[in-house]
Amino acid sequence: MNELPKLDDLDRRILSTLLDDARVPYAEMAKRFNVSPATVHVRVEKMKAAGIIEGTEILVNTKKLGYDVCCFIGINLKAARDYHSALDKLNQLDEVVEAYYTTGAYNIFVKLMCRSIEELQFVLIDKLQAIDEVQSTETLISLQNPINRNVIP
Amino acid sequence: MNELPKLDDLDRRILSTLLDDARVPYAEMAKRFNVSPATVHVRVEKMKAAGIIEGTEILVNTKKLGYDVCCFIGINLKAARDYHSALDKLNQLDEVVEAYYTTGAYNIFVKLMCRSIEELQFVLIDKLQAIDEVQSTETLISLQNPINRNVIP
Amino acid sequence: MNELPKLDDLDRRILSTLLDDARVPYAEMAKRFNVSPATVHVRVEKMKAAGIIEGTEILVNTKKLGYDVCCFIGINLKAARDYHSALDKLNQLDEVVEAYYTTGAYNIFVKLMCRSIEELQFVLIDKLQAIDEVQSTETLISLQNPINRNVIP
Amino acid sequence: MNELPKLDDLDRRILSTLLDDARVPYAEMAKRFNVSPATVHVRVEKMKAAGIIEGTEILVNTKKLGYDVCCFIGINLKAARDYHSALDKLNQLDEVVEAYYTTGAYNIFVKLMCRSIEELQFVLIDKLQAIDEVQSTETLISLQNPINRNVIP
Amino acid sequence: MNELPKLDDLDRRILSTLLDDARVPYAEMAKRFNVSPATVHVRVEKMKAAGIIEGTEILVNTKKLGYDVCCFIGINLKAARDYHSALDKLNQLDEVVEAYYTTGAYNIFVKLMCRSIEELQFVLIDKLQAIDEVQSTETLISLQNPINRNVIP
Amino acid sequence: MNELPKLDDLDRRILSTLLDDARVPYAEMAKRFNVSPATVHVRVEKMKAAGIIEGTEILVNTKKLGYDVCCFIGINLKAARDYHSALDKLNQLDEVVEAYYTTGAYNIFVKLMCRSIEELQFVLIDKLQAIDEVQSTETLISLQNPINRNVIP
Amino acid sequence: MNELPKLDDLDRRILSTLLDDARVPYAEMAKRFNVSPATVHVRVEKMKAAGIIEGTEILVNTKKLGYDVCCFIGINLKAARDYHSALDKLNQLDEVVEAYYTTGAYNIFVKLMCRSIEELQFVLIDKLQAIDEVQSTETLISLQNPINRNVIP
Amino acid sequence: MNELPKLDDLDRRILSTLLDDARVPYAEMAKRFNVSPATVHVRVEKMKAAGIIEGTEILVNTKKLGYDVCCFIGINLKAARDYHSALDKLNQLDEVVEAYYTTGAYNIFVKLMCRSIEELQFVLIDKLQAIDEVQSTETLISLQNPINRNVIP
Repeated sequence: MNELPKLDDLDRRILSTLLDDARVPYAEMAKRFNVSPATVHVRVEKMKAAGIIEGTEILVNTKKLGYDVCCFIGINLKAARDYHSALDKLNQLDEVVEAYYTTGAYNIFVKLMCRSIEELQFVLIDKLQAIDEVQSTETLISLQNPINRNVIP
Repeated sequence: MNELPKLDDLDRRILSTLLDDARVPYAEMAKRFNVSPATVHVRVEKMKAAGIIEGTEILVNTKKLGYDVCCFIGINLKAARDYHSALDKLNQLDEVVEAYYTTGAYNIFVKLMCRSIEELQFVLIDKLQAIDEVQSTETLISLQNPINRNVIP
Repeated sequence: MNELPKLDDLDRRILSTLLDDARVPYAEMAKRFNVSPATVHVRVEKMKAAGIIEGTEILVNTKKLGYDVCCFIGINLKAARDYHSALDKLNQLDEVVEAYYTTGAYNIFVKLMCRSIEELQFVLIDKLQAIDEVQSTETLISLQNPINRNVIP
Repeated sequence: MNELPKLDDLDRRILSTLLDDARVPYAEMAKRFNVSPATVHVRVEKMKAAGIIEGTEILVNTKKLGYDVCCFIGINLKAARDYHSALDKLNQLDEVVEAYYTTGAYNIFVKLMCRSIEELQFVLIDKLQAIDEVQSTETLISLQNPINRNVIP
Repeated sequence: MNELPKLDDLDRRILSTLLDDARVPYAEMAKRFNVSPATVHVRVEKMKAAGIIEGTEILVNTKKLGYDVCCFIGINLKAARDYHSALDKLNQLDEVVEAYYTTGAYNIFVKLMCRSIEELQFVLIDKLQAIDEVQSTETLISLQNPINRNVIP
Repeated sequence: MNELPKLDDLDRRILSTLLDDARVPYAEMAKRFNVSPATVHVRVEKMKAAGIIEGTEILVNTKKLGYDVCCFIGINLKAARDYHSALDKLNQLDEVVEAYYTTGAYNIFVKLMCRSIEELQFVLIDKLQAIDEVQSTETLISLQNPINRNVIP
Repeated sequence: MNELPKLDDLDRRILSTLLDDARVPYAEMAKRFNVSPATVHVRVEKMKAAGIIEGTEILVNTKKLGYDVCCFIGINLKAARDYHSALDKLNQLDEVVEAYYTTGAYNIFVKLMCRSIEELQFVLIDKLQAIDEVQSTETLISLQNPINRNVIP
Repeated sequence: MNELPKLDDLDRRILSTLLDDARVPYAEMAKRFNVSPATVHVRVEKMKAAGIIEGTEILVNTKKLGYDVCCFIGINLKAARDYHSALDKLNQLDEVVEAYYTTGAYNIFVKLMCRSIEELQFVLIDKLQAIDEVQSTETLISLQNPINRNVIP
């Protein structure tokens, strides 16, 4: 386990601010936290250098993009040792947005986004279950996602 | 089901670019996609107005922040009708970063981030399971997260 | 176990025909089966009197009516003896189109039709799970219904 | 998702009536709903043209036909990709009256009607489980079917 | 663990014979095993005195008595400590012919004999599940009982 | 379903008596039920002829014979269609005293009697699980058998 | 996470030796590892001071003490928040030799040693399940323990 | 089942003492139990000869050795008869400190010690699941081990 970069209170408040809105100007943060804009700049650069801040991305409303169906799928493989090759094939499916190796009864646990129940049916039957290594799948469709937020830095 | 905003190819390419890196200048995209920077600007504004682009956030490396343990927890309640009150209490736990109402055997399905196995133990025993409405929990610890990406716009 | 009404071959062929299309005229069946229309009439009346033919109903395309989501829900009650009262409350939910008492792990097993994932969420959280007797539910969403037919008479 | 045909109140009342009894004369409905028989006729034809009304079928009492055993069977296949070929073979079994592809732990979920426990045993052991693709089955026998009705149009 | 009575080969052959048919005369066994009838008599008395042979019972064909349905039921109680009181109530149901306390997920595991699916429904819903201590039950209906025999003495 | 033999009250009382103790003399039953010994004789013969009474067997105390461990084993096969061949092999194991084909998750459900935990281990690992067709087994050890009786005739 | 004490190769070899047999004299280890007995002494004292070596215990053959039954028991509580009070009561049962709070479906997971199946029955029914907080238990009896060893230091 | 060695009260008190601390001198025990040191010596030797005391081992604090993760893993094999060969391969993994053959749903149940979540991931994916015979695994991570003690002699 490597040494973790040390963060003080100012670092954490800057991070929290940028996790909410990455475009808040340094000057505004400086005023808010009662430091100079240069200090904010130094701190942000330090956290980039340390690999804590990895980049910036826009927040997209997936429902507005037509992704109506979000589900979790527990995948059981025919043999546990097929994990790596199954993962390679899952990686080629655009609908698989997250994949986890978890303790518990599944070999692989994925999060999948689809535009409709019809598309989900197609992806499951004709793409995901067409993968040779897959023995069975169990799908939990998310009907509501009331909490979705970042960790506290 | 409401009408979805119509997106053309240019919109989608702009979205894809900004999903990777929200700070790419409009001028650079303009050159890349062979349009004027004003066009890019118009499209971005249109997608903001349509609620597709909701904001910008920095990408943070949670491991570097010390969050070593990521897990999914299936929660069973004493009574299904306690869903709303249980959710309110879960919302007060910073470690709960996502919560879902899913089909399948659990009443609530959450994603939780902790700094260590010790912290997970504390959060589970003394915070999450101290919630009156909770009958039992089942925890899947993520040991690997090989796929983590956005939907294709 | 009561005596079952005896059916001969002609009865069964008439039943099969009417199960496909209840409006086939007796004359047509008479020609097809090489008997007189009166015979067909007598047989149909006999099967009505015996309670085999209970009525006629139109066949409706539920998808065209907007029912996009069909699912099976296994319901576990807080106490097995609450079966009758829970059933009364389920009976008041229009979305519950079938209910079964089955062997296996569930107390009640129902089939539910909804217009959308959003409606399913509402029915599950705010109607079905608001029923006092319900401890938990497990939902199997039907993604495809490739076989749907009547028994062979 | 295609545009759904628009239905007004009169359409829905006509549908409800015919779902209960397909032989109610247009004249009677006209009187009941305070419109002309021609209007009822037009509406019924419109709903037929729109594919909402697909036909008419007699309602048969399956118990009177000797079908004493109704059950649901969750089928697990040796490999998820065998779905299509397994379905073809299930389609050849008369006793399988419904088949679903569902989320949840089963590969295929079917409804099966039999005349007796003995026949169920025969169908399960010598027909359904003789299908090469089937790894295991789990059978829920319906002991009671207290709710069985149509959707509200 | 108490001392077990010692059995020799002759004892075991006598037991095997009587387990098949309790009315085989001592004289016949004597001839078969090449000993005197008195010896057989002494051995049988010895095994009665030792509590090995507890009595004689007729073998009844339960199907011929109308018992068409044999099933195993796993019972889960609301609280594990209700075991004794639940058992007392189960003991009052004639249909419960065997009850076990087993390792595994159930609190009580019973074997139940019924005359029909209808009677099973009544016993389950209105008698067994009406027991206050019962939270849920899981029923395995036996469709075939291909092996049924005594231990080898 | 064949016609069942009709039994009157006297038949049932005779059966009950003989189910408790097959050696009760006809004369004693005659006195008890206020009929002639010849009547008892006729009834018993009638029930033998009808196949209701199949024979007589001694009741043996299996604990006194050293059978300390009684368990139920749910067996899952590699393929459902291996049922018949797996059953043949189970039939050759003396320890398997009952076998059932049941609805529910197992392919075969057996009752097994052993002399000790050590013998159970041997039978499970080296005999039952050595059967080629067996994929996995789940064992419920009976710790107590508080109810064990015959059906009410 | 505190700093771990640093161990070199010699430390590890001493530990391995003492994990096998705590009575090996320092002189013998000194000869074996080609160092002075004083060095061994210093290292052992250092590891005691660091809390790595916590004491010495005799190795006892539990079978010879009459403990024939070893099992794992998954315990589900009526409410997750009863964890602490249930644990206190489990702690008073001598037969519970290990208890764990684990991820997965159980609230508490214990290892239990008993002298016989009869004693296990008594402990389960009359002691463990008599605990108010316990809703149900699932018992895995260990039939064989082929691997049992220490970690590699 | 072999004869167990007979232990009296003094034997048991000596055992208890040495189970706590194997280095307590005989003289001290003699004083504590009011017997001569020679008597203590004789008793210890007798229990060694009887195989009750098998040796002495140091007690090591595994957390101080860096073993932060303790978990139980239920292993399902592709075929039950692969038990012996799978066990041989598990025996070669240092991280597997205990292995059990248990009743219940798993083929093999192991206890595993690792230095970190990362190491657990590596051991599970690249070592344990790389074993050919393994179909799937289910991992219960121990978050707390509040009870850990010896049997009462």
